[in-house]
Amino acid sequence: MAENSQLAGIHLILGGARSGKSRFAENRINHAGGGIYIATGRAWDDEMANRIALHKSSRGEIWQTIEEPLDLCAVLTACNHEGSKPVLVDCLTLWLTNLMLDDRDIEAEFDRLCGILPGLDIPVLLVSNEVGFGIVPENAMARSFRDHAGRFHQRIAELADQVTLVVAGIPMSVK
Amino acid sequence: MAENSQLAGIHLILGGARSGKSRFAENRINHAGGGIYIATGRAWDDEMANRIALHKSSRGEIWQTIEEPLDLCAVLTACNHEGSKPVLVDCLTLWLTNLMLDDRDIEAEFDRLCGILPGLDIPVLLVSNEVGFGIVPENAMARSFRDHAGRFHQRIAELADQVTLVVAGIPMSVK
Amino acid sequence: MAENSQLAGIHLILGGARSGKSRFAENRINHAGGGIYIATGRAWDDEMANRIALHKSSRGEIWQTIEEPLDLCAVLTACNHEGSKPVLVDCLTLWLTNLMLDDRDIEAEFDRLCGILPGLDIPVLLVSNEVGFGIVPENAMARSFRDHAGRFHQRIAELADQVTLVVAGIPMSVK
Repeated sequence: MAENSQLAGIHLILGGARSGKSRFAENRINHAGGGIYIATGRAWDDEMANRIALHKSSRGEIWQTIEEPLDLCAVLTACNHEGSKPVLVDCLTLWLTNLMLDDRDIEAEFDRLCGILPGLDIPVLLVSNEVGFGIVPENAMARSFRDHAGRFHQRIAELADQVTLVVAGIPMSVK
Repeated sequence: MAENSQLAGIHLILGGARSGKSRFAENRINHAGGGIYIATGRAWDDEMANRIALHKSSRGEIWQTIEEPLDLCAVLTACNHEGSKPVLVDCLTLWLTNLMLDDRDIEAEFDRLCGILPGLDIPVLLVSNEVGFGIVPENAMARSFRDHAGRFHQRIAELADQVTLVVAGIPMSVK
Repeated sequence: MAENSQLAGIHLILGGARSGKSRFAENRINHAGGGIYIATGRAWDDEMANRIALHKSSRGEIWQTIEEPLDLCAVLTACNHEGSKPVLVDCLTLWLTNLMLDDRDIEAEFDRLCGILPGLDIPVLLVSNEVGFGIVPENAMARSFRDHAGRFHQRIAELADQVTLVVAGIPMSVK
């Protein structure tokens, strides 16, 4: 399905593992001349740090990269004051992981983000893993994670202007 | 994608965990003035019993609730005689779980339900978890469960008038 | 959604476990008068061998069956010389499993297949399991498998003329 190529408002981009969801989001912003990449992943070890550095250099100079594992709302608010550059958050599920590991109040964090998003003047692309289409996990932490992720995606999708499900690198329009 | 707002025939509503599939189905029947809610989940403990009671009261007086973990076919047949109220079955995968734990003949139960559904005069919304998009589970019971669920969904979808996949609370029309 | 019934080019058919993806692909080729079935699954034991034999006989005489767990590229090239019969590969994820168990260079095998596919003169339907929509697996081999599968699907989808996601036996058009 064709995607509207114009960047505007809030766009939730869901996909499975290695589905091409991040690349799809990056390409959308590349076509708009670049933007701000908010990386929520943490560099746990040298291998991960190298991968992050490699990704950063591959995006090129039209991108500014901000690494923020937890305080996504503050970064989004700051970006909103910098002008009209579009923002890519990659990704919400890593952010959720970090919040859970840091023992944050998850619902309060979701409330905060969902309170901020509608007031932003910049296009925001939010990438996230769809993780709810498998068998109930035996691990309690995993069950909690996918429950949080599912509820969170519903809330973001409700306020989003566009929702896309990426399958094998191809966007399917959901909303 | 827009959904036909009129309730008629058999509507299979698939979705992942916390995808908003039940809420979507409830809203469809709320707009039609209410209906009969067939809850297949079992109250294993006080917490679950409380959740069921909470859900029941939140649906309000336009709903009648019937709890039936196993004999779904008898309940559907009885509802069909009561008049034209639409029915919501929530959900098929919990029903399948109960059938497996009760050591029933699964294929015979599927045959029975698929034999009854086309003859019903009331709109029936069947909610079920799509569980087949993950890695093959290591647990044999889980593998058997997802095989049964997959085959069952195919059979219901074939005789259904509508099939919807709910992603992040948003309906995608499948059939 | 309606599917173009004419067979041409490369068609990637994704689906979950027991989603009806193989049956969908078989029906497409049945309507075209039959074809060549390339089975990548291995008969590990008598039960599996019996299932394969049963499937083979159920497809009937309009099908030729070739069993090839590893050297898919050689078989496709050979089929291309035999004339214009359409080919069904069932399935890519079993092929990937066999490659991993045989300790092959996965990326080199993907390169080889993606190099061959665009030059084939016959319609090729490639069936594969979408496995990336669940929780991150705890098993490292499973994580590697789904990473490979995801990247592989992206590459095939990019060069494919059609991509279909089968949900409960019903095709959803992706590309």
